[in-house]
Amino acid sequence: MKQKIVIIGGVAAGPKITAKLLRTTDFDCSIDLYTDEDVISYSACGLPYYIEGVIPEAEKLIVRRPQQFEQQGASIHLNKKCIKILPEEHKILVQDTITSEIKEVEYDKLAITTGARPIIPSIKNINLKNIFTIRTIKDGIAIRNKMLESKHAVILGGGYIGIELLEAFHANHLHTVMIEREPHILSLFDPEISDMIKEQILAMANVNNENNVEIITSDAVAAFEGNEKVEKVITKSGRVIETDLVIIAAGIRPNTEIAAEAGIELGVSNAIRVNNRMQTSVKDIYAAGDCTENFHLVSRNYVWIPLGSTANKQGRCAAVNITGKYDAFPGILGSAVTKFDKLSISLTGLTETEAKKFGFDVITSTMTKKDKAGYMPDAADITLKLVVDKRFKKILGAQAFGGGDADKRVNTVASAILAEQTIDEFLHLDMTYAPPFSTAVDPLLSAALLISNQIYK
Amino acid sequence: MKQKIVIIGGVAAGPKITAKLLRTTDFDCSIDLYTDEDVISYSACGLPYYIEGVIPEAEKLIVRRPQQFEQQGASIHLNKKCIKILPEEHKILVQDTITSEIKEVEYDKLAITTGARPIIPSIKNINLKNIFTIRTIKDGIAIRNKMLESKHAVILGGGYIGIELLEAFHANHLHTVMIEREPHILSLFDPEISDMIKEQILAMANVNNENNVEIITSDAVAAFEGNEKVEKVITKSGRVIETDLVIIAAGIRPNTEIAAEAGIELGVSNAIRVNNRMQTSVKDIYAAGDCTENFHLVSRNYVWIPLGSTANKQGRCAAVNITGKYDAFPGILGSAVTKFDKLSISLTGLTETEAKKFGFDVITSTMTKKDKAGYMPDAADITLKLVVDKRFKKILGAQAFGGGDADKRVNTVASAILAEQTIDEFLHLDMTYAPPFSTAVDPLLSAALLISNQIYK
Repeated sequence: MKQKIVIIGGVAAGPKITAKLLRTTDFDCSIDLYTDEDVISYSACGLPYYIEGVIPEAEKLIVRRPQQFEQQGASIHLNKKCIKILPEEHKILVQDTITSEIKEVEYDKLAITTGARPIIPSIKNINLKNIFTIRTIKDGIAIRNKMLESKHAVILGGGYIGIELLEAFHANHLHTVMIEREPHILSLFDPEISDMIKEQILAMANVNNENNVEIITSDAVAAFEGNEKVEKVITKSGRVIETDLVIIAAGIRPNTEIAAEAGIELGVSNAIRVNNRMQTSVKDIYAAGDCTENFHLVSRNYVWIPLGSTANKQGRCAAVNITGKYDAFPGILGSAVTKFDKLSISLTGLTETEAKKFGFDVITSTMTKKDKAGYMPDAADITLKLVVDKRFKKILGAQAFGGGDADKRVNTVASAILAEQTIDEFLHLDMTYAPPFSTAVDPLLSAALLISNQIYK
Repeated sequence: MKQKIVIIGGVAAGPKITAKLLRTTDFDCSIDLYTDEDVISYSACGLPYYIEGVIPEAEKLIVRRPQQFEQQGASIHLNKKCIKILPEEHKILVQDTITSEIKEVEYDKLAITTGARPIIPSIKNINLKNIFTIRTIKDGIAIRNKMLESKHAVILGGGYIGIELLEAFHANHLHTVMIEREPHILSLFDPEISDMIKEQILAMANVNNENNVEIITSDAVAAFEGNEKVEKVITKSGRVIETDLVIIAAGIRPNTEIAAEAGIELGVSNAIRVNNRMQTSVKDIYAAGDCTENFHLVSRNYVWIPLGSTANKQGRCAAVNITGKYDAFPGILGSAVTKFDKLSISLTGLTETEAKKFGFDVITSTMTKKDKAGYMPDAADITLKLVVDKRFKKILGAQAFGGGDADKRVNTVASAILAEQTIDEFLHLDMTYAPPFSTAVDPLLSAALLISNQIYK
């Protein structure tokens, strides 16, 4: 019997579910995807690189167009916002964002992939022109256009998106000030690692003491000032910063209000709780992507770490289970990467701070070493911090930054963490070596040896 | 009581043992290292990059100088060849390579780190000038000097060193012919992967149909011709190739004759058999580096895969055990990497060919995908082949080639293989994602999904 599959949300997980269902030839279904945007299936993670000018056209960020899905038999409904889920009746209410017309849509199985949205802090005059959040392609185009005629920018928030826009603005010769309310940028990293990263960013950006980039921590914006458009940012400590544009990148929240209203259980940070088949607490309703919480495989706690890589895996998993087959998404390690210019910044598992918070007794090692044989002209420093459980010797996490392939070393540790390897086992890892690729003893193994030396004095 | 530690061989494992012993402050010993060369502790793996001109001076390949060790209390004896080991008497005989004088040296513990040497095939006129092998810094300097005045080169052997010299000669605008007696170059890879690599090398080198590089397989050299110096290479199939220089890179053999004479057990390829503390079959004699055989952790067979990365680990392990503490080197995965220009080429674990030979029933997947988000201008193709045990689903091996970080993906698989992960477990690997670093679903996970799709149809 043909099943009606309805999907709400069109950025990453929704299109992934659609694509996987379309490829599943032995499952008879109709597919209707509703989105309140006028575009689907785009790489939001790519927006900073469009703004920077690395990607020439915003169009390139579109992975699949509605027509492609329609040709394969799915129905894509643009500018249609889901305003209510009626689980008992297996229906949703959808409102046309242009005509405001409301329509009932029946489903046999529903997938919620509504993603997340930027948090807008309540700051005086936040509605002035040229104050932007970044989520959609339209946001990206507006920011780029404004950036091209600007000389000064302010970024609120020192997370991944903040760092990526800092790179974009710096590359386009804007004087840019980042304001982070916490004492450290990149608060997912251990504080001393954050500080090392901050120093390197400032050193790279302000070579020749040009002071192109400023990073302010432990301060927040008190008010924006300007005549229609933003002209000044006033911080709580009293700094007055002239600016042509402002980016609000101070966190996101999941779009889960309609799910909550429908009685679907929420978890950490109000993200939707799902089991490892991506089923919500309500029958026949699945969820995937940034709107769901995640089980952290190392801390054994529920967390909300919304990432594009996870959205893709969850989308696939949801689709397989919707068809009645079995697939599981057991959880995440929190692996992530960003960069500023040539500085890769990445982590996986738990930081020392988190590990202690979750009750682990840890040994750590931090070391800096060349990523390639020292005599290779493009050898660059890479700094690695490993966090290991003191009693059981299991690897809990890794943080890395530097030139070259800092992030790829983190993936190699992620593989070991997933396998619950001890540092003793990990030390026997046979890594590839040739002078253009690594040192004879890879930085990763050197960091592991430092841990081993602490254990077996 | 002060122990006399004697080390024979000075390239990689020997200096590593010396360095580790010098750092072990709670072990009282004298350290005497004997080498038949006039230099120690150099990166033989770096020679192709010196020849190419990437590294400006051969000196840069020297990791540690004798003086550095001497200042720390070790004695380094250059130009002293060990000609006999007398295990009963705990002595070795050492001959001065300049004066021919022979001396007895006592030891409490002996470490054999004599490495390996190129195999010289018996070919007519092999003693003509400008026919080189590559092992020492002197070889590297001689090859570079000859290359700089040459237009044509021939390389015998299509292994890692062959490929690296092909890059060096090609970058220096020599017309170069590689001759490999087997049907495929890089015979450690599966044949169809070798062939894809070969095609890519030829396409990169011969852009605009310049025919700068030729690769001949299933043919061998019958004779060299020339007046004092080599001028022509005659192959068994009758090809006559004019050349200014020839490199013999047709394999190496371990330097284990003196070990065998002393009654030390040899294993595969006449490499020295060691246990996982790097102890040979003879009391108080250790061995490490290219002269030892290895236990392959996947095939569970003894193999001889001499690599610099292994030499370093074994050297460290031998040193720790020499001091009476415990360290183990359980074996290798055979991870290796090389490159031609921007094409990284690497592998770990077993190929399909090897896995079948060792009695595994396998599933494989081969896929080509961009290494970064497709819209990033520097996104490059990466091809991955995974080999998985059909019954137990354990990952057995990976081969990768392409632009970007092909080799780093292989290290991530190596970590999973070491941990004996199944493909089901590996699929849950949380890899870092951002557009400049990978695709939302990393090529590695895509390859793993292809396997999974075969298993769970």
